[in-house]
Amino acid sequence: MNLEKTIRLTNLFDFYESLLTEKQKSYMALYYEDDLSLGEIAEQFAVSRQAVYDNIRRTEKVLEDYENKLRLYEKYIKRQVYFEKLRIFSEQNHLCELKEILEQLESIE
Amino acid sequence: MNLEKTIRLTNLFDFYESLLTEKQKSYMALYYEDDLSLGEIAEQFAVSRQAVYDNIRRTEKVLEDYENKLRLYEKYIKRQVYFEKLRIFSEQNHLCELKEILEQLESIE
Repeated sequence: MNLEKTIRLTNLFDFYESLLTEKQKSYMALYYEDDLSLGEIAEQFAVSRQAVYDNIRRTEKVLEDYENKLRLYEKYIKRQVYFEKLRIFSEQNHLCELKEILEQLESIE
Repeated sequence: MNLEKTIRLTNLFDFYESLLTEKQKSYMALYYEDDLSLGEIAEQFAVSRQAVYDNIRRTEKVLEDYENKLRLYEKYIKRQVYFEKLRIFSEQNHLCELKEILEQLESIE
C-alpha cells in the first residue's frame, strides 16, 4: 500500500468518520487503522474480498468528496504551521501566558 | 422569526452549505440571508408555501445533524475566544510578530 495515500486516508477518515455508515466505518478502521488485509476483513464479515475492496474504494471517494467540500484536513494542516510558529515564538521570548493560550487553542482540534 | 435561531442557522448554513443540494441552498439563502418570506420564495419557484416551509425545516434538521457530527461551528466559536485573548496579549505587550501570526491563523477560518 502507498504510504502517502495511507496517511492521507487515515487522516480523512479521522475527520469525516462521523459522516460514514457503520459498515463503511468498520471496513475503513480495520483496513487503515488495524492494518488488516482485504482477505482478513472479508473473512470476518463473511463476504467476498471483492465486496470489501469495492466498499473501501467507494468510501475513499466519499472521504475525498467531503474534503473537497469542507477542506477540514487542509485547514488543520495550515493551522499546525502557525501553531508551530507560536510555539517557537513563545519559547524564544519566554512567554508562558502565550504558551498556555496556544495549548488551549490546540486542544480544540 | 426568533433572532437567536436565525443567527445560529445562518452560521450553520455558512459552514455546511457545500453539503446541501442546489434547491436546499437556494431556499436557505433566500430565507436566511436575503430575508425573503416563505410566500415570496414560493412565488419565485412556482411551488406552494407549504413546500418551501417543509424544505427549509428539513434543511435546518440536516444542518443541525451535520453540526452534531462535525461540531465546526462550536469549534469556530471556541477558537474565536482564544484569538481574542491572543489579540489582547499581543497588543498589551506590543508584539507585532505575534499579531501577524494571529492574522494568518484567522485567515484560515
